[in-house]
Amino acid sequence: MLTTGLDLRADAITLTKVVCDIPSESGNESRLVDAIEAALDGYDHLQVLRHGNTVVARTMLGRARRIVIAGHLDTVPINNNLPTHFATLDEEAAAADVPGTRVGEYLVGRGTVDMKAGVAVALKLAAELEAPIHDVTWIFYDNEEVEAEKKGLGKLAAVRPDLVEADFAILGEPTRAKIEGGCNGSIRCDVRTRGVRAHSGRSWTGVNAIHKVAEVLDRLNAYEPQTVRVEGLDYREGLNATLISGGVAPNVIPDECTVHVNYRFAPDKTLEEAEAFMRGVFDGFDLEVRDRSAAARPGLDADIARDFVAAVGGEAYPKYGWTDVARFSELGIPAVNYGPGDPQKAHADDERVLLEDITAVEQGLHSWLMGERA
Amino acid sequence: MLTTGLDLRADAITLTKVVCDIPSESGNESRLVDAIEAALDGYDHLQVLRHGNTVVARTMLGRARRIVIAGHLDTVPINNNLPTHFATLDEEAAAADVPGTRVGEYLVGRGTVDMKAGVAVALKLAAELEAPIHDVTWIFYDNEEVEAEKKGLGKLAAVRPDLVEADFAILGEPTRAKIEGGCNGSIRCDVRTRGVRAHSGRSWTGVNAIHKVAEVLDRLNAYEPQTVRVEGLDYREGLNATLISGGVAPNVIPDECTVHVNYRFAPDKTLEEAEAFMRGVFDGFDLEVRDRSAAARPGLDADIARDFVAAVGGEAYPKYGWTDVARFSELGIPAVNYGPGDPQKAHADDERVLLEDITAVEQGLHSWLMGERA
Repeated sequence: MLTTGLDLRADAITLTKVVCDIPSESGNESRLVDAIEAALDGYDHLQVLRHGNTVVARTMLGRARRIVIAGHLDTVPINNNLPTHFATLDEEAAAADVPGTRVGEYLVGRGTVDMKAGVAVALKLAAELEAPIHDVTWIFYDNEEVEAEKKGLGKLAAVRPDLVEADFAILGEPTRAKIEGGCNGSIRCDVRTRGVRAHSGRSWTGVNAIHKVAEVLDRLNAYEPQTVRVEGLDYREGLNATLISGGVAPNVIPDECTVHVNYRFAPDKTLEEAEAFMRGVFDGFDLEVRDRSAAARPGLDADIARDFVAAVGGEAYPKYGWTDVARFSELGIPAVNYGPGDPQKAHADDERVLLEDITAVEQGLHSWLMGERA
Repeated sequence: MLTTGLDLRADAITLTKVVCDIPSESGNESRLVDAIEAALDGYDHLQVLRHGNTVVARTMLGRARRIVIAGHLDTVPINNNLPTHFATLDEEAAAADVPGTRVGEYLVGRGTVDMKAGVAVALKLAAELEAPIHDVTWIFYDNEEVEAEKKGLGKLAAVRPDLVEADFAILGEPTRAKIEGGCNGSIRCDVRTRGVRAHSGRSWTGVNAIHKVAEVLDRLNAYEPQTVRVEGLDYREGLNATLISGGVAPNVIPDECTVHVNYRFAPDKTLEEAEAFMRGVFDGFDLEVRDRSAAARPGLDADIARDFVAAVGGEAYPKYGWTDVARFSELGIPAVNYGPGDPQKAHADDERVLLEDITAVEQGLHSWLMGERA
């Protein structure tokens, strides 16, 4: 059945390592996509389609309901953290790391958390589960870590909306093997001040654009982040300057300064409401929106979502980062995040996934899809 | 007598155009220096020496007093403003430009103001005045527009202090053909804030270094510039952020932000006092001094300075920008700025010198050096 080196019969941990060790930074996913397409093509119970660097594999069993299980293949840039290696974290090392770090065996390296462990579990189950109780559309896509218009899942949904249609969607983003519902939205904008250039030896003949930014930063400091409860889950918000630049030379009064601001907002707000809030905060300043991604409500009130939550553990948590569940939410499809790894380690250079998480997610999805209730 | 195309018998306006049209951005002065050295070598009343890209030509008449007349040959980068051209500014055009712009005939282009018109006048007089009433050391030097350690006059003074020894020094920097005494000092420093990086979707796990800069800018905005009277001249000060940069990515809480601050201070303060003032303003912040240039007192209480002021017009003004008069001041040599062009146009892309200024400075220096009192 197998036609490439990607052996989907391997255990999920081994498969995670193999998938991570094929580099796939955003925009350079082809090698991994080719391997995945070839590997899935070998299974008769799957219909395999490719669109650009996105691979779709789906069962066509005529079940009453269809589930999408999706994961992105791209990673943020490699930084001397490939190939992966195994490591043990003892109590001392765990205590010295980010709060909540767990003791145990880890796979360390780029992509282990965000989100090739989730991809590996999906690949294994796609190959293994010939007759799940729901039809499943497995989607492996590119360019999730970059700007909205490049994201592979969005491009697929635009040209083949039928392929993303489902009654429920699960994203394998890192959640420490817990269910995380919905996600915060994100808007990024440039707030710009302007002045008049002059030689700094005669500063009174100019107007200093950097000095004007004090008011922008004062407003950011005056902002008090809210925690918003939506469908029983608490979403923390944030409003932060992430980049700042201004000035032309050490001896010139600057005529322009730009503050790049990122607003992460709870799913009680639409994009329009969130943008209006930002414009209110920076009233009187030149504001240009650079990127907008909607929030997603948790969607946990749907029957099938409740059924899934009950099957894999009974509790759900809020998701803070933006994920593609928002895309499903926009299409009216309830969607959750459920994957191995601690999201605090996403994009970190010491990214690493707890091996237990990989096994737990594999078992959780396997049991639910095969109707093996605990 | 002449061995090159640089004909020092030409009138000062023509000579200004020729000197400007030989490009000499800082670090690339050789072509102009070669031409000047060759031209001056042709005059028997001058002893010509070269050190690097600095040319010294001095009379050795055994006069009681020696004057240094100096000018830098380098310009800030050319920006489509060479070769030069002549232009007329009428009342309407003058009113639309910086305050104090005068109506008249101009030479337009890089270096016309800062400070090749001053250089051309000095070259012409060096060639012409075979028997001035004071001995004169004419100095033409490189790299004035760049960092302190590269400045040609400083390098010359370090290896051949005898060549800059004098009873009085005149720098041909632009002063609208008025005498400007002394100069403000300048200190540049980086004020740095630090935080803790985090994903902006979980901003509460990080500390935002850009937000901390609000306090730095608040202190700059709270600063009230002083005007300080020194030896009868009023010096305006200034404290300005000229550059700012911070952040690593649009979705990362920034762990560092740097504000570059320039303090221009009156000649009543030493470098140490000025630095202490800056450290006081930014108390509690990480501050690194990047460049320091001392101020210079006007030096107008010296007999020979008074004599010069009386000879060329009777009034003196403060100089705001830093110039090499500070170097002479440090050596105990009274020094003033006196040159063609409006300093407000120094470094401007539409740099331009009023032709009348060139003639006025030429006549002022000629009269004084030949003892032809008005």
